[in-house]
Amino acid sequence: MAERNGALSRRRLFTGGAAIAAAATATSCATAESATPAAGFGSDAEAFHGPHQAGIATAPQAHALLIALDMKPGTREPRDALAAVLKLWTADAARLTQGRPALADTEPELAHRPARLTITVGLGPRAFDLIGLPHRRPDSVTELPSFGTDRLDPRWSGGDLLLQICADDPVVVAHTARVLLKNVRAMTSQRWRQRGFRTARGADGSGVTMRNLMGQVDGTANVRESAELARCVWDDGSRQPWFAGGTVLVLRRIRAELDTWDELDRASKELAVGRRLDTGAPLTGTDEFDEPDLAATENGIPIIPPNSHVALARHRSEDERFLRRAYNYDDTPTGTVSEAGLIFACYQRDPLRQFVPVQRRLAESDALNPWVTTIGSAVFAILPGTGEGGYLGQSLVE
Amino acid sequence: MAERNGALSRRRLFTGGAAIAAAATATSCATAESATPAAGFGSDAEAFHGPHQAGIATAPQAHALLIALDMKPGTREPRDALAAVLKLWTADAARLTQGRPALADTEPELAHRPARLTITVGLGPRAFDLIGLPHRRPDSVTELPSFGTDRLDPRWSGGDLLLQICADDPVVVAHTARVLLKNVRAMTSQRWRQRGFRTARGADGSGVTMRNLMGQVDGTANVRESAELARCVWDDGSRQPWFAGGTVLVLRRIRAELDTWDELDRASKELAVGRRLDTGAPLTGTDEFDEPDLAATENGIPIIPPNSHVALARHRSEDERFLRRAYNYDDTPTGTVSEAGLIFACYQRDPLRQFVPVQRRLAESDALNPWVTTIGSAVFAILPGTGEGGYLGQSLVE
Repeated sequence: MAERNGALSRRRLFTGGAAIAAAATATSCATAESATPAAGFGSDAEAFHGPHQAGIATAPQAHALLIALDMKPGTREPRDALAAVLKLWTADAARLTQGRPALADTEPELAHRPARLTITVGLGPRAFDLIGLPHRRPDSVTELPSFGTDRLDPRWSGGDLLLQICADDPVVVAHTARVLLKNVRAMTSQRWRQRGFRTARGADGSGVTMRNLMGQVDGTANVRESAELARCVWDDGSRQPWFAGGTVLVLRRIRAELDTWDELDRASKELAVGRRLDTGAPLTGTDEFDEPDLAATENGIPIIPPNSHVALARHRSEDERFLRRAYNYDDTPTGTVSEAGLIFACYQRDPLRQFVPVQRRLAESDALNPWVTTIGSAVFAILPGTGEGGYLGQSLVE
Repeated sequence: MAERNGALSRRRLFTGGAAIAAAATATSCATAESATPAAGFGSDAEAFHGPHQAGIATAPQAHALLIALDMKPGTREPRDALAAVLKLWTADAARLTQGRPALADTEPELAHRPARLTITVGLGPRAFDLIGLPHRRPDSVTELPSFGTDRLDPRWSGGDLLLQICADDPVVVAHTARVLLKNVRAMTSQRWRQRGFRTARGADGSGVTMRNLMGQVDGTANVRESAELARCVWDDGSRQPWFAGGTVLVLRRIRAELDTWDELDRASKELAVGRRLDTGAPLTGTDEFDEPDLAATENGIPIIPPNSHVALARHRSEDERFLRRAYNYDDTPTGTVSEAGLIFACYQRDPLRQFVPVQRRLAESDALNPWVTTIGSAVFAILPGTGEGGYLGQSLVE
């Protein structure tokens, strides 16, 4: 088996690369159910080229690694340096996501089964200044206001460049990160790295919303249809023509205070969340996807408390809708039992109109606040997608 | 879907627990191929009770978390304290591995799909002194001699108690670690935590040996048959009657020096390893499982160099055979591109006769040494298994 794969890989590498890549792309929507079990889902590939980058509307893979880099100070011609980074990453990503080793891949055997690998690239607000193009920064790409409940650690905040690497196989994620980073080490330094996971692919039946480590069904209310994505997520180029097809990522690292959360009884937890813990249904419904009835009362008391998480987090207008794509994290604790929580990633046209009003409500009065603490925050312009022959960020830097 | 699962869980919890657990045990050998796709492999369970602990001969799960704890100094009646820890862990493990929430489980929804969860418990050499039973320490459970190539960091070495938690789903691993640790925090403190992964379940066809992050097929030569396990791995009680059915874990954290490894050309890498990188076949063969022919020469020169990894790591007598069960790690680097390598776990009757002679050869002259550095080391007595009604370690502490 290993040998047959090896032989196939060499053929792929030297002769049939493009054709096999095209075939892989065609299977990108294969599910665990429809894939041939003997081959495994490792050969599933997500298309790289297109008007938007993959890894946003893509059904969340099981593993994510988010890496923020800073451009090294003193780089001469920083705009050219950034263009060089973006060209390298584009060339590598176009190959790796399709199961082909990167051009200078020293471990090509780790590249043959992409397992729905996506590589998504973003720029922090400061990057536009560094490359001498402050006037081309979309006004939607700006630091967030501070919130009263924030306890931000610089260790988990900011960054000039973002690499978001997602796949259903952690070996693919590790290999991809190494390939992408080693080519740019002269120009960049690492600022932080956040590793996240969801339920393993194939462990659940399909269509189940993930649970976070507090036990809650997480991400029920979400933007899913492509018309919604076009309205809420993808930039239309009206701010900056070069940015059409891009989006803005708000990344928040939210620590779960599990020790105190676990002291709470189940009924109190459900009142804080506004949903049942077992089914994820709102307290006024029976199914996860039932609409919460915020007006419903029992003996004159709201069934869903007005300061419950669901009551406050829910969009109050179409403006407040955005795409959530969260991952759990569970790191090595120092002195406590757990250092765990949520890497909350959300994508939108304009955080100031979409994420910020929701977060302001939550910071003011979310009943969950005693058990969640935002310890990191960053904003990135997720570059528009690219066609074949182009590179990510080309419309900005050229 | 979430609701149906929730409803099932409640039934499981309140009415049909034992029957469903038994059914789950019966499917413990189900593969991804034979499992019903709609249900997912999350419901697969590994038996907990038996003469040996699970997690050793068990086919390696995709995710592992190894946690070393120290018993807190000043604990009164440390033997009773240890017995209390072992009873708690046994009760929790018997339930969690079968998809049933732990007795005081505050996130029961995270416990319903064990995904082949195993929980394996060990004691470090010092633990026997701490509980006042130094005479009951098997003489096979002792610190290793030092090797010239060791660069041990106390951060990754030693420990009084070991928890090895493995499952095919990282959410299960995280929840299990929390449940097991929070119940014993008064008596123990965490010493280190090592998180490892292999190829995701279902990504490959079955039967493929894992690759490490250096790109090599890793663990081809291994003990697999139950007769071999009985001879090489499971203690027969001749050292200490209470230890019959146990084994000794040697855990080594081996950093891969990927930056310099990647500077090496492919032919040199293959000479250092003694195997082809693509297929894992020995340089004298065509298939991964071909026997390396260490005597074969070409123009008078050995085809497999005598100081290659395969020539030195291979057992030279039956005495030197042991069970390997390694995981990759990929942590956040500080200042370099990668901080990655192998969590090398091996299990045997007696490290001084099995692991140590092999490691001595490797330390002296392994051609791979410039690219691998052992930075952590620990030895644990893996307790014998337990039957229903008993608890892990009972034969030691009572």
